[in-house]
Amino acid sequence: MNDLTIVLDAKSQIPLYEQIYYHIKKEITEGGLPFGRRLPSTRKLAKFLQVSRTTVDLAYGQLVSEGYVEARPCKGYYVCDLEGICSLSPESPRERKEPVKPDSGCLYDFSPRGVDLNSFPLGAWRKISKEILMEDNTRFFQLGEPAGEWELRCTIADYLHQARGVLTSPEQIIVGAGNDFLLMLLCVLLGNGRILAMESPTYRKAYELFDSLSCTVRIAGLDESGMRIDSLEETGADLAYVMPSHQYPLGIVMPVKRRMQLLEWAAQKEGRYIIEDDYDSEFRYRGKPIPALAGYDRRGKVIYIGTFSKSIAPAIRVSYMVLPESLMGIYDRRGRRISSTISRVDQLLIARFLNEGYYERHLNKMRAVYKSRHDALLEAMKPFRKILTVSGENAGVHLLLNFQNGMTEQEAVSRAEAESVKVYGLSRYYIGGVSQERQTVILGYANVTEEAIKVAAGRLEKAWL
Amino acid sequence: MNDLTIVLDAKSQIPLYEQIYYHIKKEITEGGLPFGRRLPSTRKLAKFLQVSRTTVDLAYGQLVSEGYVEARPCKGYYVCDLEGICSLSPESPRERKEPVKPDSGCLYDFSPRGVDLNSFPLGAWRKISKEILMEDNTRFFQLGEPAGEWELRCTIADYLHQARGVLTSPEQIIVGAGNDFLLMLLCVLLGNGRILAMESPTYRKAYELFDSLSCTVRIAGLDESGMRIDSLEETGADLAYVMPSHQYPLGIVMPVKRRMQLLEWAAQKEGRYIIEDDYDSEFRYRGKPIPALAGYDRRGKVIYIGTFSKSIAPAIRVSYMVLPESLMGIYDRRGRRISSTISRVDQLLIARFLNEGYYERHLNKMRAVYKSRHDALLEAMKPFRKILTVSGENAGVHLLLNFQNGMTEQEAVSRAEAESVKVYGLSRYYIGGVSQERQTVILGYANVTEEAIKVAAGRLEKAWL
Repeated sequence: MNDLTIVLDAKSQIPLYEQIYYHIKKEITEGGLPFGRRLPSTRKLAKFLQVSRTTVDLAYGQLVSEGYVEARPCKGYYVCDLEGICSLSPESPRERKEPVKPDSGCLYDFSPRGVDLNSFPLGAWRKISKEILMEDNTRFFQLGEPAGEWELRCTIADYLHQARGVLTSPEQIIVGAGNDFLLMLLCVLLGNGRILAMESPTYRKAYELFDSLSCTVRIAGLDESGMRIDSLEETGADLAYVMPSHQYPLGIVMPVKRRMQLLEWAAQKEGRYIIEDDYDSEFRYRGKPIPALAGYDRRGKVIYIGTFSKSIAPAIRVSYMVLPESLMGIYDRRGRRISSTISRVDQLLIARFLNEGYYERHLNKMRAVYKSRHDALLEAMKPFRKILTVSGENAGVHLLLNFQNGMTEQEAVSRAEAESVKVYGLSRYYIGGVSQERQTVILGYANVTEEAIKVAAGRLEKAWL
Repeated sequence: MNDLTIVLDAKSQIPLYEQIYYHIKKEITEGGLPFGRRLPSTRKLAKFLQVSRTTVDLAYGQLVSEGYVEARPCKGYYVCDLEGICSLSPESPRERKEPVKPDSGCLYDFSPRGVDLNSFPLGAWRKISKEILMEDNTRFFQLGEPAGEWELRCTIADYLHQARGVLTSPEQIIVGAGNDFLLMLLCVLLGNGRILAMESPTYRKAYELFDSLSCTVRIAGLDESGMRIDSLEETGADLAYVMPSHQYPLGIVMPVKRRMQLLEWAAQKEGRYIIEDDYDSEFRYRGKPIPALAGYDRRGKVIYIGTFSKSIAPAIRVSYMVLPESLMGIYDRRGRRISSTISRVDQLLIARFLNEGYYERHLNKMRAVYKSRHDALLEAMKPFRKILTVSGENAGVHLLLNFQNGMTEQEAVSRAEAESVKVYGLSRYYIGGVSQERQTVILGYANVTEEAIKVAAGRLEKAWL
C-alpha cells in the first residue's frame, strides 16, 4: 500500500474522504496506480489510515462515480482504463492581458446609451435569486420552451396590457436574450428577399442586422411626426421598422394620427407588417400617455418588441416580442426549433421581480431620477438657446442640440472634448451611405448626475459660446 | 388628515414605514390625495400615528424617490402630477392555460436529445451563484463585452487546449446563448450569398437557420468517414459544416485522414472555411482520443463551435465559438455591435464552475453514467443482431439500429410505440427534400437508466422479433 500512504490533515477544510479521493485520483492519473491494479479493500485501507470505513467508502464511491475505479462484485475495486477521462489540471497562469477598451478620457460623458445603475435594487434581486435556487427543482436545468417560460410570458402579457395598452395572449409572446437576438429571429421567420423600410437616422444595429441577414433595406423619409407614409409607399417595402414611443436617435414621439396612417398602410396589403421597437417607452415627461402602436392594432399587423435591458439593467438580457396571430404558424414551423436563449432561472427571476411589485417601484424610481436629470439638463441648456434649438426632450433619456449658428457637428464634438465633455454626433446614425456634415449633437443624461450636468454645462459654455 | 388615518399593524411582517408608504401611495393613485395637495409634516404625521419621526421620514423618502411626492424646500411635501407614473395593479388572475405539449405517452423514451440531470451538481451551482451575488458589484449589471467576459473566455481557452487540443487566444473566443444563436451570428459575419455544404442526414436546425438566413445550402455526400471531399468539391461551396467528433445523427467519428483532407480543401482557396460543430466530443468510449479538427488547423480555416448545454445542463444556455484570426476583422466590423446574449452573472458562474474543478468532476461522472448505459444498451441489443446492425456506438449518447430484415423505419417506430417504447426514425434528419423510406432508427440513452434499458429491450423483442 505504498502508493496509498496518504498524509491526512484532520484540521484541513477539505473533508478526510476528499483528501483520500484526491490522493488516489492523482496516483491513477499520474500512473502510480496503473490500469487493472486492485485497490485495497475499504476495511484494510481504513485500518491502515486510521479512519472510519465510511470515510473510505465515500472516497471509493466518488472515484467509482467519476470512472477512475470500478467495483467488481465480490472481487473488490480496480483501477479503470482512463481512456476518455477528462483531466483538467489548473494551467500555470498565462500572461494574458485583457484588451484595453478605448476610453474617451472625458470627465463628463453624455452617452446616449447610458443607464444609471446606482438605483439597481440589488437586495430584491438577490432575495429572489436565492429563493429560486433553493427550490430543489431540476426542471430549471432542463431545456425550457423555445418561446420562454409560461409564467414569464403571462407576466409580460399583463404588463403590456396595463402599461402599454397592448392586448395579447401569452402564446404570442416570445422572449429572447436581447433585441438583437429577437431581430435575428425575426429575419428567420420573415425569410429571404423581403423589402424593409427604415428611417434615417435610425438604430444602426437593427439596420446592420437586417442588411446582413435576409432583408433589402430601403430608406423612407421622415418629418416631425416620424416615418412619412407617402415615402414609405414609394419604397415598395412590405415591412416597416419604427420606434413610435421615442424614435432613436431623433427622439420623435409619433402622434396618434401618424400611427393610424401607418396601420392603414399595413392593412392595405396582405403580408405587410410593422415592426414596432417600443424604445424608451418607460420614460415620458410630457404629453398624454400614448399606448403602443400595437395597442391600436386590430388587424394583426404589428410585431412588437420591448426589453428589460434599459428599464432594469443592461446586463439583464431579456427582451420580448409579440407576434400577430397571422405569424404564429410561421413561428411554429421555423422559429420554435430555435432554443430559448435565456436560462430558466433568469426567466423566473424576471417574472417574480415583476409579480412581486419590484419592477413598478424600480421603474418609478428611475423615472424620477431621469426626470430630475432631464429637467436639470434642459435648465442648463438655457444659456445656449441663442445658438441652438433643443429637440427630442419629451421622453427617453437623451436630447438633441441643433446648432443654428453654423457650428458643425464635428466642431461641436471636438470643442466639447477639449473641455473634457463627451457629446455625440448625429451623423453616425444615418444609413444608406449619404454622408453629409450636420449640425446636431446628442446628449444622453441617464448616467450623469444633476451636479455633473451643471458643471459640464459650464464647460460647454466655454467650448461653444 | 382624514386620508391619512392609517391603521398600522405592529405585528405585520411589513415594516411600519412601508405600511405608511403603501397607504399614501394608494390614496394618491386612487385620487384621495390629488395633485398639488400638501402632505402633513413628518413631525405632525408621526405624532398623529404614534410612530417615530424616522419612520415617517423613510415613508416620505420612498414616495419622493418613486415620484409620487415632491419635497419643496422650506415648504413641505406635495403630491406630484402622476402623468407618466407606472401603476401596475395585480390583475385579477385570468384563466390562462399553458398549451399542453404533445407527449409520446410512452413509458420508455429513447430521445436522442436527452440529458441526465440527476447528477447535476446543484450544491456547487448554488454555492457559486450565491458567492457571485453577494459580491457587491454593480459591474455585473452593466453591459459587458459583446464577445463575453474575459474571465470566461480565458477559462474556455484553457479548457479547449487541454481537453480538445485546440490552441487559441481568448480574443478569438465568442460566447453566446446556445449554438443556434452562434450560427445566426455566423450568418451575420459571413454575409449574404455564401454557398455552404452540409451532409445529409445532419443537424436539421443548423440547416434551417443557414437556409432561412444568408446561405445557399448544398448537400455533400458522405461515406463511413464522413463528408466526401470529391462531393464537397462538386458543390462549389466555400463553407462546409461538419461534426467530426460524432456526426449527428449518424454517429460517425471522422478519422484523422479525412480531417486532414478537409483542411487541405479549405486551404486551397481563400475565403474557404470549415464550421466544426464539436458535437458530443465530451463522451467517447472507444478508440484513441482525437483532437478537434480545429486542433490540426494551422492555416486559420476552422470556425469551432462548442457548448456547455449538453455537458452541464440544457437550460445552461452557454456556447462558444472560436473564430480564426482572419475573421476577427469582420467580427470587429459586423459582430461586435451585437450585444452579448448571456448575463454576466451566468458567465462568471460558468467560469468559476470550470476553474474550481467542478466541471472536470461533473464530466467524468456523466461519462461514467453514460458509459454504463451505453454498455447496457449494446448488451441489450445482442438478441437483435440477427435482424439489424448497430452503428454510431463509439461516442456520444445515442446509437443507430439499421434493420437488415426489410423492416421499415415507420414500421419499427410504430411497433415499438405499441409496446410503449419511443424510438426515433432517421428520416427526419435528411435535408434537401428527397424523402425516401429508410430502415434505421435512433436510440438515445442519456436519460434512460440501465434497469429501464433492460425492460425496454424486452418490450422491443416483442415488437420487432
